[in-house]
Amino acid sequence: MKFGINLSFAVKRWPEPTEWARLVRETLGLSHVQFTYDLLDPWSPEPMRRAMAAQVRQAAEDFGITIESAFSGLANYCYDGLLHPDSAGRRISVEWWKRAFDLAAELGAEASGGPVGAMSVAAAADPERREQLYRGLLDSMEELTQAAAAAGLKCFLVECTPLAREVPYTVEQANKFMSDLKGRCQVPVQFLVDVGHALYQPLYGSNARMVDWLRGLGRVIGAFHLQNTDFQSDSHWGWPDNRGFFDVGAFSKEVCDAGLEHVPAHLEVFYPFELADDTVLANIKSSVLHCRRAYCRENMENP
Amino acid sequence: MKFGINLSFAVKRWPEPTEWARLVRETLGLSHVQFTYDLLDPWSPEPMRRAMAAQVRQAAEDFGITIESAFSGLANYCYDGLLHPDSAGRRISVEWWKRAFDLAAELGAEASGGPVGAMSVAAAADPERREQLYRGLLDSMEELTQAAAAAGLKCFLVECTPLAREVPYTVEQANKFMSDLKGRCQVPVQFLVDVGHALYQPLYGSNARMVDWLRGLGRVIGAFHLQNTDFQSDSHWGWPDNRGFFDVGAFSKEVCDAGLEHVPAHLEVFYPFELADDTVLANIKSSVLHCRRAYCRENMENP
Repeated sequence: MKFGINLSFAVKRWPEPTEWARLVRETLGLSHVQFTYDLLDPWSPEPMRRAMAAQVRQAAEDFGITIESAFSGLANYCYDGLLHPDSAGRRISVEWWKRAFDLAAELGAEASGGPVGAMSVAAAADPERREQLYRGLLDSMEELTQAAAAAGLKCFLVECTPLAREVPYTVEQANKFMSDLKGRCQVPVQFLVDVGHALYQPLYGSNARMVDWLRGLGRVIGAFHLQNTDFQSDSHWGWPDNRGFFDVGAFSKEVCDAGLEHVPAHLEVFYPFELADDTVLANIKSSVLHCRRAYCRENMENP
Repeated sequence: MKFGINLSFAVKRWPEPTEWARLVRETLGLSHVQFTYDLLDPWSPEPMRRAMAAQVRQAAEDFGITIESAFSGLANYCYDGLLHPDSAGRRISVEWWKRAFDLAAELGAEASGGPVGAMSVAAAADPERREQLYRGLLDSMEELTQAAAAAGLKCFLVECTPLAREVPYTVEQANKFMSDLKGRCQVPVQFLVDVGHALYQPLYGSNARMVDWLRGLGRVIGAFHLQNTDFQSDSHWGWPDNRGFFDVGAFSKEVCDAGLEHVPAHLEVFYPFELADDTVLANIKSSVLHCRRAYCRENMENP
């Protein structure tokens, strides 16, 4: 199983590349990460951005860490992105992604991605505007895969989210999206499936199962996000957490049964900014240990 | 009492200026707002940013709404800002604030602000680096008040946050900060005090009281954020919420007793992105109604 960690855990607390790289390698025992743009905003002007990206790349090399992809975090998810109701808002998002791809390449990552957009309540309620925005999203994806190719990236990872105003939010919509993009993309588009998104019961009902996503999307799944959840929120908790009961061991078996053990899975945990740093660090450590045992089936003593 | 709402409630769901303006004026019955940069990122390139800012200003005018200030939201709070451990990171934040001030002026707001920075865990643990970063923050504040004055703003609002790695996080530190800035600022620096930050018990203990902040800071308080909280997290819940028990009526009395009834108070609520839109709208409405009754002491029937 390919298991790594999204650097969301390091945001604000361990932003120095050598700090998070040391934690990842020496404390957590991992060698694969997904970089988050919450650590370095693609909007950051030159020459500062390039200087900071070079430090990230160097630290990853020094600690023997592979940056598999660079991904949207909380900051970019605050905006409506490529589905913004205003054409200027959508154009701003296209520019952001182009810079994100350049930054991903500077970091040495081969892929970049994230959730791509949200419709406003008003737009989502209007079938005609929904369709226009969806068609525009396909055009933006075509333009952006050209930019990704030009930057030297090999994949654009689109995250499925648990909101009916976002695209894609179901297996069926994701397959239609892929079908509609056929022949238009300069680099492959793949999906990132987050287990806490896929099993969000208020939207998908209590019968939502990961196997439906694994079988329904199969080979177009490019990455997973692991999180602990109560299935009633997009929780992004770790382990142990007495509120959550996602069975990462059972998911590991489902991934193998679907023949997807080659797909990278990254733990993505978010903690309140104000939570005590030592509490956060302890939970990150125990969460990674739990995933290494239950997802990767490593036979480990307590460290 | 001066009561308004931070536009955090509108993020992603009602981003169209006419949509949130109509909600604010016609549904919530308010005429004062605090704009959030989560609706329009100051990094947004021209001419898109200016076009979108003009629409915001026009909608506010059309609906008779005053944009009192433009404020950092969740997106900018993801970064370490003016206390980033790397000088390039700090310089990026200075540039972000300069653009934020320009945007605030374009919106017709007289003030801008937010939390100004967070130290990394490593920096905060080193007294010498703490002091260097603090001195650098004072320099950045001086530079930024020049930029604020050049943009035509009248105030830089610095938010107090419940983290010991951020500045300022106590009444004492806030007063020292103000004293250290004396004579250096081109526009006045004032504090925004968020009730949920000020009463966060894991940091300040169970005896934390708003009157200590009101008496301790007094005339340098430029704005309040109202939220419902359990005092164990920076909750930003509304009313009703069975998890929270902040008494906004008692706070209203304390504000009057301190002679601060002229200070604008903005409700700042955050909901999970995935929460159903109608649930969110119902809670925004009931929260505003609760604050109008308990904070403003309006004598209202159920609408």
